[in-house]
Formats: sequence, C-alpha cells, structure tokens
Amino acid sequence: MKMKIFLLFSLLFFSPCFAQLMPGPIIDDDNRITFSICAPEAQEVKVINLSDSAALGAAEYQMAVDADGKWSVTTKSCRAGLHYYELSIDGARVADPASPLYFGWGKWTSCVEVPDKELDFYLPRSVPHGDVRMHWYQSSTTATARKCLVYTPPEYDQNVTQRYPVLYLQHGAGESELGWTMQGKANFIFDNLIADGRAKPMLIVMDSGYAARPNAENPHRPRGDENVFAELLIQELIPMIDSQFRTLADRNHRAIAGLSMGGGQALRIGLTNPELFASVATFSGAGRFDPDTAFDGVFKDAVAFNSTYRLFFIGCGTLEGNRFTSMKELHELLTERGIRNAWSAPVGSHEWQVWRVHLYELAQLLFN
Amino acid sequence: MKMKIFLLFSLLFFSPCFAQLMPGPIIDDDNRITFSICAPEAQEVKVINLSDSAALGAAEYQMAVDADGKWSVTTKSCRAGLHYYELSIDGARVADPASPLYFGWGKWTSCVEVPDKELDFYLPRSVPHGDVRMHWYQSSTTATARKCLVYTPPEYDQNVTQRYPVLYLQHGAGESELGWTMQGKANFIFDNLIADGRAKPMLIVMDSGYAARPNAENPHRPRGDENVFAELLIQELIPMIDSQFRTLADRNHRAIAGLSMGGGQALRIGLTNPELFASVATFSGAGRFDPDTAFDGVFKDAVAFNSTYRLFFIGCGTLEGNRFTSMKELHELLTERGIRNAWSAPVGSHEWQVWRVHLYELAQLLFN
Repeated sequence: MKMKIFLLFSLLFFSPCFAQLMPGPIIDDDNRITFSICAPEAQEVKVINLSDSAALGAAEYQMAVDADGKWSVTTKSCRAGLHYYELSIDGARVADPASPLYFGWGKWTSCVEVPDKELDFYLPRSVPHGDVRMHWYQSSTTATARKCLVYTPPEYDQNVTQRYPVLYLQHGAGESELGWTMQGKANFIFDNLIADGRAKPMLIVMDSGYAARPNAENPHRPRGDENVFAELLIQELIPMIDSQFRTLADRNHRAIAGLSMGGGQALRIGLTNPELFASVATFSGAGRFDPDTAFDGVFKDAVAFNSTYRLFFIGCGTLEGNRFTSMKELHELLTERGIRNAWSAPVGSHEWQVWRVHLYELAQLLFN
Repeated sequence: MKMKIFLLFSLLFFSPCFAQLMPGPIIDDDNRITFSICAPEAQEVKVINLSDSAALGAAEYQMAVDADGKWSVTTKSCRAGLHYYELSIDGARVADPASPLYFGWGKWTSCVEVPDKELDFYLPRSVPHGDVRMHWYQSSTTATARKCLVYTPPEYDQNVTQRYPVLYLQHGAGESELGWTMQGKANFIFDNLIADGRAKPMLIVMDSGYAARPNAENPHRPRGDENVFAELLIQELIPMIDSQFRTLADRNHRAIAGLSMGGGQALRIGLTNPELFASVATFSGAGRFDPDTAFDGVFKDAVAFNSTYRLFFIGCGTLEGNRFTSMKELHELLTERGIRNAWSAPVGSHEWQVWRVHLYELAQLLFN
C-alpha cells in the first residue's frame, strides 16, 4: 500500500511526460496551432475533427512522438474563432486533457480559441458586467428539474422597478444551455454593446433546446422532440420568466433567435406564434422550404408579414457551403417578395465565430 | 474530399463501437460501476485514480476488450458519492468521453455519482430554487476579469428590501469556483434546508481560491499565492459583494468556510480577521499547528475566542487517515481548552460526499 502511494507520487511529480503538465494548444502569430499530449505506449495519436474551415482539407493531423512519449503536431494556419476538436489515441476519441472543454457534440469537447486580429467585440472589457444566472425550474412537460441561463443586464439589480425586453436564444445540436455563454460569449457581447449605447438593455434566456416527455426513449433526439420543446417554451418557460423576472411581457418586447438546430427552432416557434414574438432570427439554421406554405404561409403576404414582425433576421457564414447557398437564396427570395429582413453573412463556416457576429449584429437591431 | 466526408459519416454512424454511443458509467444495485470506452487499436486501457475510499486497494482497474474494440470493466462495490476518475489509454491519462466532467485536478475530470441510499439532502426537490449567478468583476489585485458564483436564496428577487448574511465558500486544490455548485450541490442543499425552515436564507459567494499578481510565474501554485487570494478577498471581493448585493455587511453576518485547500484558507483568513468574520469553518483542511501560536494566538484565550467567534466548525471524513487523526486531535484539544467548536465526522474519505454533509450541517448552525 505504501509502495503504491509512493509510485503514484512518483508518477505525479517525476514523469517527464505527464498529461497535466502539457501546456494546452499553443497558437503562433500565423494562427498555426501546436497540440501535444503524453501517451507513452500509444501507436497512433491524431488531432481529429478540428472544425476549422480553412483547414478542412486537413482536419485531421497525425501527431509525432518524442523519446518521452510526448506526441505533438503543428497545424496549418487556422481561421480565427473557437474550434472544436478531438484527439484519437489508438482509435479512442477523447478530449485533450490540456484544453478548455465546452459542452458540444453531445459531450464535453475540447476547444481552441484562435484570437481574432480584427474582432474583439466578444472579449470582456472593463465595463459593467451583467450576471448570467443559473435558474432552476420544475417542468411538468418533462417532469424534471431544468436549468436555464438568464443574462440580466448590468443595471438590472439597481433599477428595481424597470422592466426589460427578452431575447430567447437557442444553442445548436449537441450543445446545451451553456453554449451561448461559454462558447458564444453572449454576455460579454451585450455588456460591451450596452456600455457603448449600441444595444438596449435586455434579458437573454438560454434554455436547453432538448426536451422529452417522461419516459421518452431518447431525450436527445431533437427531431422527435421538437414539438415538446416548443410546448415547454410556450407553456412553461415564457410564463415562468415573465413571472420571476422583470420583463416587458408582450410580443413587441419578446424575440427568439437560435443557431443551427436552434435557428430552425426559432423559425418554427417564432413564425407560427406571432402573438408571442415580434422578432425572429435564425443563424445558420433553415432547411429549404416552400415560401408559399411554410410556417402556416407566413411569407405569403408581405404586407401582413411586415406589419406583424418588427425584425426578421437571417444569418449564415459564407463558408457554410450548401447551407449558405440556400439561406442566401431564402434572403433574396424574401427580399424580392417585399418581405423585410436583415441579412448577415460574415466570412466563416458553421462555427461560433460566425454566430458571435450574428448575435452582435442582431443585438443592435433588437427592440429599436 | 467527398470520399473523406463519406468516410467520416460512415465512421460516425456505422461503427459498432463509437465512443459517443457508450452509455457512461453504469451503477448496479451493489454500487459496482461498469465503465466502457471504444479504443479499437489500444493495447492497454485502465480506469485509474478512481477516488473511492472503499476501493482504494483497487483504485486502478484493468479493462478488457471485446471483438469490436470496446473496452470495459466492472469495479468492486464503491462508496456512495461523487468520485473523480481518469482513463489511461496506452499511457495517456484522459477523461472518459461518456462521463459527466467537472473541473477538478486542475482540468475537466470525469466523475461518477454513486447514489446514496441513505442521504438525499443534496438532490433537487420540488421546492423554490435559488439562482446561482455567474458574476464578473474586474480585479486590480490580479489585473484580470474574474468570475465568482453567487447563490441567492429563492426569495431574494421578491423581497427587494431584505438584506442577507453571506457565506464565503471555497473549493479545494485543483478545483474552481464551479466546484461547490457542480460537484457540491450547495445550491440544492440550501434550497432544501431553507424550504424546511432549517437554514436561514443567505447569500453564498464562491470565488476561485487562486489569485496571482500580474505576471506571476504560475498563477495556479496555491502556496505561493495564498496571501494574494486573502488580499483579493478582503480588499476587493467582500466590498464588491457588499456593494452589489443586498448583504448584512457586518462580521456577525459574514462567515467563511472551505474544503481542503479552501479549508486552510478559511482558517487563516477567518481567524486572523475577526473584524470581518464571526463564523469560520474548515472541512478536511488544517495542517498540524501549535495552538498557542497559530493564527496570531487566537486559541490562547478561550474566553476571548468564545466571545469573538459565534461559530467555529471543524469537519473531516473518518476515512481520511492522518488528516482525520490530526483534525480530530485539534477538535479534542480545542474542546479541552474550552474553545467552543462544532465537530462533524461523517464516514467517508477526502471526497465531495463528506463535504456535502459538512455543508449541510454547517448550514443549520450558521447565523442562528
């Protein structure tokens, strides 16, 4: 037993290659990333699924090993922004123990943040910060305790009689209610814009887009549960938020937005419930649909649409391939039909840097 | 390129052994845990450092592989509570991709929660829930933006003129400000006790116990930075909390507690700053010290101590070995000297289940 403890301590402190001492991803001036991990007995170690569009042709990087069992590789130059990735160690797909982890891809996933030399709107500045509250509530739809995150603007606790508009903001598939804060930096984006007088102080409600009825077979299969989430949002989440926070509880002061899967949810929920939402935004999230019939035919009558919706926002990264093509076509088609919409097309792929830009632009348009 | 995408999709959907489809740790009725991971090309896969005291003699479990490359093992019966662990894949120490991860051991670490058949005080019940706020502030001590977590009791937003006592609650080495919420379930412990009328509604402030001056060499070396954290807590954190939250801003309504490293911090800060704290608690955190001279001789005069401190709380798990022995001796020595102290000794090791019990007991004694 004593020998065991001694050996454990030896391993902890004297091994020249000890995973926890790896520095995590290192980024050079040309946005090349060096990854490293200790795997003394491994045969093959790779960086896989590095979700960086500029590196798509080489999204997988074979690592090389040194005499101490430390594997490492330096990538090509990568785009700025937050990239998910995994390591493959002899075929096992795992997180890099030296990286920050965020919940994405249905699990805690390694991320590397490549600083952007041109954009800093999402970095914390020395301005008043809003809180992000973990707020628990009991759902009768799912028969579970759920946690949503609620951003309250910096002044919320001081102006105790003031009421605020609300943005419901949804994450993408495989992510969670944490996504817009941890990956998206939504709170810092709003802190900065509010400090500069460029966004209205508002509440942001970020809940999980997954909801299943009790005893549902797979609570994380979004397609099957879409109606359950919509029901939960409308019948439980909105009334709960309106009763427990100082909201302006009317459609003119309520917006819904989301990215990817959440963008689809925002469209479906926002455009079929005009009595609840006057502003709707989709980021990289809309399949092809028939504009005459989709969403109860909401796009059929431009005059009616424009008088119903204060803001309709469509965003997609220019490097998202077919998705970009179809969302750009949607924007153009709607514009042609006289349907007022805001269009955001930053250079980037299906990644958080694009969605941060979308949110930054949306924030400045909301509730004006 | 197209072939590459096809292959990726094949891998994602058709591989019979795909890490993300592993179910995560499965616990049977006898508290045996089955771990599994897909690692088709690996030579040796182990569960290591499973921090369960009952299994200490076998904290390492060799896994066996099946024809699909799925490795698995079932442990001996384990103690109830939250256990950290790692996987070793051909010598690489990584998190289990199928497990929940919490920040511990200086990184995001796998955890398995073994339900306790006797204790449920830390599980969410259908009672009013307090929020846990992520609260950012700019520190001039560290010259960084810091995030602390603040639990506000369920009634906080309704009783907008009410002021509350404050517990400063610190995590252990390698953990973060998230520890007491994610691992410790401090918010649910208080929600339940407050609902039952067994704890006073109070604020709980949970900050990182690590603080380094700008350009310090290693911001995560606690010993070297202890004074920096104490300075930050006293000069910045407490005044910030007292100005931004509705606190009862006096020593009688301010407590400090912590576990392990944080228990040492609570002792040093709480017992050398009686003008700030009237209640001090240490969980599994106190070295041996000379009671005549330690903490500016605070234990020398029992009458003075007892009139200064409303509550002095010492806790340690009975299975913590030398640590338990020395903390029990401390409790007995102080009691012998007439120094009033509360003693908590649940069965358990240096683990969160013990600290949850300590907090549960402390909560019922605080500010009475």
